[in-house]
Amino acid sequence: MEYPRFEGDRVILAALAEDVGLGDITTLSTVPEEERSVAHLVAKEDLLLAGLPAFFRVFELLDPDDPVIWECSFKDGDKVNAGDAIAVGRGSSRTLLTGERTALNILQRLSGIATMTAEWSAELAGTNTRLIDTRKTTPGLRALEKYAVRVGGGANHRIGLFDGVLIKENHIRAAGSIDKAVVSAKKRAPHTLKVEVEVTNLDELKSAIEAGADAVLLDNMDNPTLAEAVKLAAGRIILEASGNMSKERLSSVAKTGVDLISAGALTHSAPSVDLSLLFK
Amino acid sequence: MEYPRFEGDRVILAALAEDVGLGDITTLSTVPEEERSVAHLVAKEDLLLAGLPAFFRVFELLDPDDPVIWECSFKDGDKVNAGDAIAVGRGSSRTLLTGERTALNILQRLSGIATMTAEWSAELAGTNTRLIDTRKTTPGLRALEKYAVRVGGGANHRIGLFDGVLIKENHIRAAGSIDKAVVSAKKRAPHTLKVEVEVTNLDELKSAIEAGADAVLLDNMDNPTLAEAVKLAAGRIILEASGNMSKERLSSVAKTGVDLISAGALTHSAPSVDLSLLFK
Amino acid sequence: MEYPRFEGDRVILAALAEDVGLGDITTLSTVPEEERSVAHLVAKEDLLLAGLPAFFRVFELLDPDDPVIWECSFKDGDKVNAGDAIAVGRGSSRTLLTGERTALNILQRLSGIATMTAEWSAELAGTNTRLIDTRKTTPGLRALEKYAVRVGGGANHRIGLFDGVLIKENHIRAAGSIDKAVVSAKKRAPHTLKVEVEVTNLDELKSAIEAGADAVLLDNMDNPTLAEAVKLAAGRIILEASGNMSKERLSSVAKTGVDLISAGALTHSAPSVDLSLLFK
Amino acid sequence: MEYPRFEGDRVILAALAEDVGLGDITTLSTVPEEERSVAHLVAKEDLLLAGLPAFFRVFELLDPDDPVIWECSFKDGDKVNAGDAIAVGRGSSRTLLTGERTALNILQRLSGIATMTAEWSAELAGTNTRLIDTRKTTPGLRALEKYAVRVGGGANHRIGLFDGVLIKENHIRAAGSIDKAVVSAKKRAPHTLKVEVEVTNLDELKSAIEAGADAVLLDNMDNPTLAEAVKLAAGRIILEASGNMSKERLSSVAKTGVDLISAGALTHSAPSVDLSLLFK
Amino acid sequence: MEYPRFEGDRVILAALAEDVGLGDITTLSTVPEEERSVAHLVAKEDLLLAGLPAFFRVFELLDPDDPVIWECSFKDGDKVNAGDAIAVGRGSSRTLLTGERTALNILQRLSGIATMTAEWSAELAGTNTRLIDTRKTTPGLRALEKYAVRVGGGANHRIGLFDGVLIKENHIRAAGSIDKAVVSAKKRAPHTLKVEVEVTNLDELKSAIEAGADAVLLDNMDNPTLAEAVKLAAGRIILEASGNMSKERLSSVAKTGVDLISAGALTHSAPSVDLSLLFK
Amino acid sequence: MEYPRFEGDRVILAALAEDVGLGDITTLSTVPEEERSVAHLVAKEDLLLAGLPAFFRVFELLDPDDPVIWECSFKDGDKVNAGDAIAVGRGSSRTLLTGERTALNILQRLSGIATMTAEWSAELAGTNTRLIDTRKTTPGLRALEKYAVRVGGGANHRIGLFDGVLIKENHIRAAGSIDKAVVSAKKRAPHTLKVEVEVTNLDELKSAIEAGADAVLLDNMDNPTLAEAVKLAAGRIILEASGNMSKERLSSVAKTGVDLISAGALTHSAPSVDLSLLFK
Repeated sequence: MEYPRFEGDRVILAALAEDVGLGDITTLSTVPEEERSVAHLVAKEDLLLAGLPAFFRVFELLDPDDPVIWECSFKDGDKVNAGDAIAVGRGSSRTLLTGERTALNILQRLSGIATMTAEWSAELAGTNTRLIDTRKTTPGLRALEKYAVRVGGGANHRIGLFDGVLIKENHIRAAGSIDKAVVSAKKRAPHTLKVEVEVTNLDELKSAIEAGADAVLLDNMDNPTLAEAVKLAAGRIILEASGNMSKERLSSVAKTGVDLISAGALTHSAPSVDLSLLFK
Repeated sequence: MEYPRFEGDRVILAALAEDVGLGDITTLSTVPEEERSVAHLVAKEDLLLAGLPAFFRVFELLDPDDPVIWECSFKDGDKVNAGDAIAVGRGSSRTLLTGERTALNILQRLSGIATMTAEWSAELAGTNTRLIDTRKTTPGLRALEKYAVRVGGGANHRIGLFDGVLIKENHIRAAGSIDKAVVSAKKRAPHTLKVEVEVTNLDELKSAIEAGADAVLLDNMDNPTLAEAVKLAAGRIILEASGNMSKERLSSVAKTGVDLISAGALTHSAPSVDLSLLFK
Repeated sequence: MEYPRFEGDRVILAALAEDVGLGDITTLSTVPEEERSVAHLVAKEDLLLAGLPAFFRVFELLDPDDPVIWECSFKDGDKVNAGDAIAVGRGSSRTLLTGERTALNILQRLSGIATMTAEWSAELAGTNTRLIDTRKTTPGLRALEKYAVRVGGGANHRIGLFDGVLIKENHIRAAGSIDKAVVSAKKRAPHTLKVEVEVTNLDELKSAIEAGADAVLLDNMDNPTLAEAVKLAAGRIILEASGNMSKERLSSVAKTGVDLISAGALTHSAPSVDLSLLFK
Repeated sequence: MEYPRFEGDRVILAALAEDVGLGDITTLSTVPEEERSVAHLVAKEDLLLAGLPAFFRVFELLDPDDPVIWECSFKDGDKVNAGDAIAVGRGSSRTLLTGERTALNILQRLSGIATMTAEWSAELAGTNTRLIDTRKTTPGLRALEKYAVRVGGGANHRIGLFDGVLIKENHIRAAGSIDKAVVSAKKRAPHTLKVEVEVTNLDELKSAIEAGADAVLLDNMDNPTLAEAVKLAAGRIILEASGNMSKERLSSVAKTGVDLISAGALTHSAPSVDLSLLFK
Repeated sequence: MEYPRFEGDRVILAALAEDVGLGDITTLSTVPEEERSVAHLVAKEDLLLAGLPAFFRVFELLDPDDPVIWECSFKDGDKVNAGDAIAVGRGSSRTLLTGERTALNILQRLSGIATMTAEWSAELAGTNTRLIDTRKTTPGLRALEKYAVRVGGGANHRIGLFDGVLIKENHIRAAGSIDKAVVSAKKRAPHTLKVEVEVTNLDELKSAIEAGADAVLLDNMDNPTLAEAVKLAAGRIILEASGNMSKERLSSVAKTGVDLISAGALTHSAPSVDLSLLFK
Repeated sequence: MEYPRFEGDRVILAALAEDVGLGDITTLSTVPEEERSVAHLVAKEDLLLAGLPAFFRVFELLDPDDPVIWECSFKDGDKVNAGDAIAVGRGSSRTLLTGERTALNILQRLSGIATMTAEWSAELAGTNTRLIDTRKTTPGLRALEKYAVRVGGGANHRIGLFDGVLIKENHIRAAGSIDKAVVSAKKRAPHTLKVEVEVTNLDELKSAIEAGADAVLLDNMDNPTLAEAVKLAAGRIILEASGNMSKERLSSVAKTGVDLISAGALTHSAPSVDLSLLFK
């Protein structure tokens, strides 16, 4: 159940509704109902697969009574090289042609995120620093995109505003101080949630530690400041570096000793990978 | 009603459900219910705005009884420079803080698409060639993304499989020939729909014209071939060039005289633009 | 996939919700859970079948775990004579009795439309004129009713306002002229859509042709005027005759040479045919 | 709250979804956003109005922020003559044009039912017999159609299978006898529901009375038999005559003294009335 | 179909959505996907079972492709003793652990209602008085809770405001008198519904009988008054005693001869019974 | 926004759908549309209010165009004495009568939970121990019931399986050991979530502390064992006592020094409080 099946089905049905609507007129008018096809899902570039369950499910939801049968020796998380035939589907030509675009749109986006996450994560190999995502996800696709980040070897930050406490500048100002904000949050939040505070300098970091925060987000700091933060924290608090991350910078940030690096780019800027469905 | 309000609301409600869920614990525990804030929506880079109605609507849907009041002298389609204050919102601090991320996620993505579309469209200035989108859109966001393309000065290809006929290789093979496919489609499709055929060479183009197609998609042709196609067609059919488009290539493709250039990149590869909500 | 399965299921579930609600008290209290019945679907008049997939699906949705098994040698589009046993179902008496009315209501309405369409279409045999439907359909049933028209040998006009352009009097007045309206529509609509203009006299027809419209709706014209329109158009534009159609008039209208005759009566006035479910 | 507002809104939203979808391309491309129109709702034949709340609501749901303002001196249940201007709407031309068809489709159908019901009911004037509807309604529109019957002066039979007990032939056979079926139903059904039995002859009528049924449906009996049934029942049980009803026959059936006459034709065969929305 | 399956599924899906949301993090991170478990559903106290179909269905809806297989020799309505193993489930450990709480929450509540209903009903053994429920049910669970009452040997009052007429004090005041209220209700309500009147003294009871009501609710009367009411009614009308009922009082109320005793406590105050899912 | 408005509306609409359905026949037939009433919401026992926003919202959702106007000097969290008039509503008699039961059902249940929570919490006054709820809530009402617990002065445990990690016996067995389970959970769960382990004895408590758990649930321990656990933990970990809690025992449990006491009874066994809507 790692792949978020309920959310996946919701996304697929919405995508089919907007693409197929009352029917694929072209296919209905040119392809006989009984025609069968064999279709090969082929990688057009090197990539890390994410979203295969969704890809297959598109065709199953399109016609549950006559499902396309897929042969596939790959699974989510596998590396695929350009030219690899990932899967072979046999079934109704109509179903294959009508579902093609929707299935590819989802698989290309999720694999794009997984591929980028894997490349960035590789920069952290051998360190204790973990790469995590943010809430800068595509509206409606958060569960799937966070799944793709996990497939790519990253970890997830909180899912939304309901399952984690992250006290930012405006919360602090409204509460009166970091200390007051942390105390309020600890009182109101379930005890199963940690309390994280966003800080922009070392003084605020000190206040957060003294207030009993469980984690801090070190916002937009350069590497030397991050290193000082690690020294100052001395293992008393989880340290998340955030802001202005790039693949090139990751390894140097990890060397500062922070626990986590978060990057919105994983979900809002990962380019779709190129995949094709070839009919034979 | 140009902005697709019904679709917009559907997307916003889904986005709020996944982000806010049962409540923004941080804000609820640190910000008093009665606190008011002033928030400035600021551009962090030059961009073309798309999605302002959705941005404002997020806060309205979050709390219809105490809506944030926005002052705004810009509208969708306006150019904004880095540093410009696009809008100023006054209202409940809780509503502003809880809606911030969802509102920005939508606005940044749609403005990203509009900005890219405008840049690409500029390459076609002074020609009769129009830039159009494809069905390679984000699952669930098609109506909004196609709106952003229009805002950016592009035009829309068909919305989905139900409002346009596009006969591709597999349809032709199943029907027996281009001619048979076109005849079948004309018989089945409402007479309000044109029939377009995807062709990969000039022979197929000839067949399509002879079969009475209304338009052709010239798939992955180089510029000289496109120019020949234009000559061959001689105005008898709408010509859409597609495949391997880049901003750099657009102007030379337009010079071949094709009517339309379609590019999936407008929706699947437009990077989000950078916008911020600053509280004062 | 010609039968619009997704739409069909939506309609059936809504119909079951309003008819069965929290339970068929009569059946639950008088018929033992394990009782089995054999039920014959019988035509009480001559008719053309449309909606069998929906008819069977009602019972399947009512109890997916113990579905009624249907034997049936007819299919949608077949002619059935009064007295013919169309199908025989074997299964749970409760399911058969509870689903009977909902299943018949749908089948009788759709077969009514198909039967009327077939009778009207027969008047056009041997001509090049096609009979088409309109948007005057039952709220919520458009996809099913347009399917029934196709089953009856008619063709479909546009599905709705989104997949076809039909410029009427008020659009023309707002745009300033037929020419301006056509130009605006061509610019905004996807190139896959044709542009049709409603005209009430031959001068407007001329303007529409000159403006580059793809089709015209000839509104409420008598046959001599229609014949003049055909002569004037000379094959340059698709001609749809509309308004005051009756079965008796169809053949004379077709003789004028118009391409299409549209009739709202097919969907808003087709009487339900008489069908019965007999238990043995 | 007599007009079923919740159900009405559900039907309207479904109708708008299927008709407008992602946008009325014609109107959006030819009519300026700011243009205002005055539209007259005019009767093209004599009729009894039903569905005005739904008619107005269509435009309100289309654009709640800029609603069309309607002036109207008629209400549901009023008689209207051919040529009467029923209502005048002032507001956005776009909203008026886009909502026109959906609003008319609903109003024409409901007024058709009310008009037919009123004509049939008139035949019963001066008698104690009431005209009632059946479950032979359009899938999804039951609440609205039963409302239209009430507007037309008829009464409603049970809404569905959940709010009334009607024991038919197959229930009797399954239960073993009329007596056993009635006893079972009385035990299981809430005491707020009456128990009605369908009978085909006078022997069965006697059994139903002896079993303690509250009402009987006299199925397909001729008038003399109905008169005998009335005599036999002697006021001990409610008598509903059903089957083969026509407007012409109603008055003679009423003379037999039955309490209720039910007719499926009111909902499955009432022709839509002719109404127009004229723009000035 | 006695168990309200459609309603049950609606409740289960809502319960899973609020409990599982985007995933059971604990189980996903500690239990391997392939691990299988055997789980015993055990009663921790004596009880009457209600809700087993819902209990099993929770696991089926959680993972339809790899359902837990249940062995079970009990069914709804069976008495179970403390310590009894009601069912044994074999299947995916993840599914069993994730669904456990939702399945138990439903089963414990419904069995609690059935158990209490059975205990109260036992007090009426040997009398002609039936125990019935009210509309004081848990929001959203009415169909399931009324099912549990039936399982426990009680009967159902009307489901809601739509399937029964119950004229209370305020209705009488608004209508002018008991007589006017009954006449209005008989005219408006389907003839399949009885008309019940709430009365607080014997004068009102007389008025109700004279007005032709089918039943009365005797509100908050002591036993002697109830006995007088029975005498006064003399079998002409159904008598429902209501208000201040307790298990202890039931037998003495039944002795007064009323037909029905209604008690809100069955649904709003039945304590959940204790059940456990033990993994072996 | 502390009251979960979105969830509240969902619950109210479902409750109205099941209670009102296609209409409150009694009220529609006896109460004129224009009649106005004044209704007093009165406490029939001492209680702590929770759910007033939902109570008022029921009437607003029933008729948004003619809302009942409520005068009310109380708010959620206020103590109310038997006989107090909590609020006075003025508006349509129909709306007040139709919404009465649904509004009361919700308010009585939520106030019941808040009242019980306040009584139990009072036992912990002057200690550092907090009373918290569990996941043993009514299916579909979790958000509202957890709100009622907060109103009553309690705190919330995790909302569901997605926003907190609680490793139980079966998770430990599947993972191999407490240590392995904690490590796996920390790796997979967002860093914003704490990791809690359920332990049944002090050895397991030691293992949990050594494994780096953030909290433990001390399952079904007697007070002396709880006291030992507090000593052993020495402030290194959050301690939650759970199992066999009663109001009487709370104060002695708090004296052991545990941080939290959780009790399912707050949500699954709180009796509804008695409230009435009196019309004047």
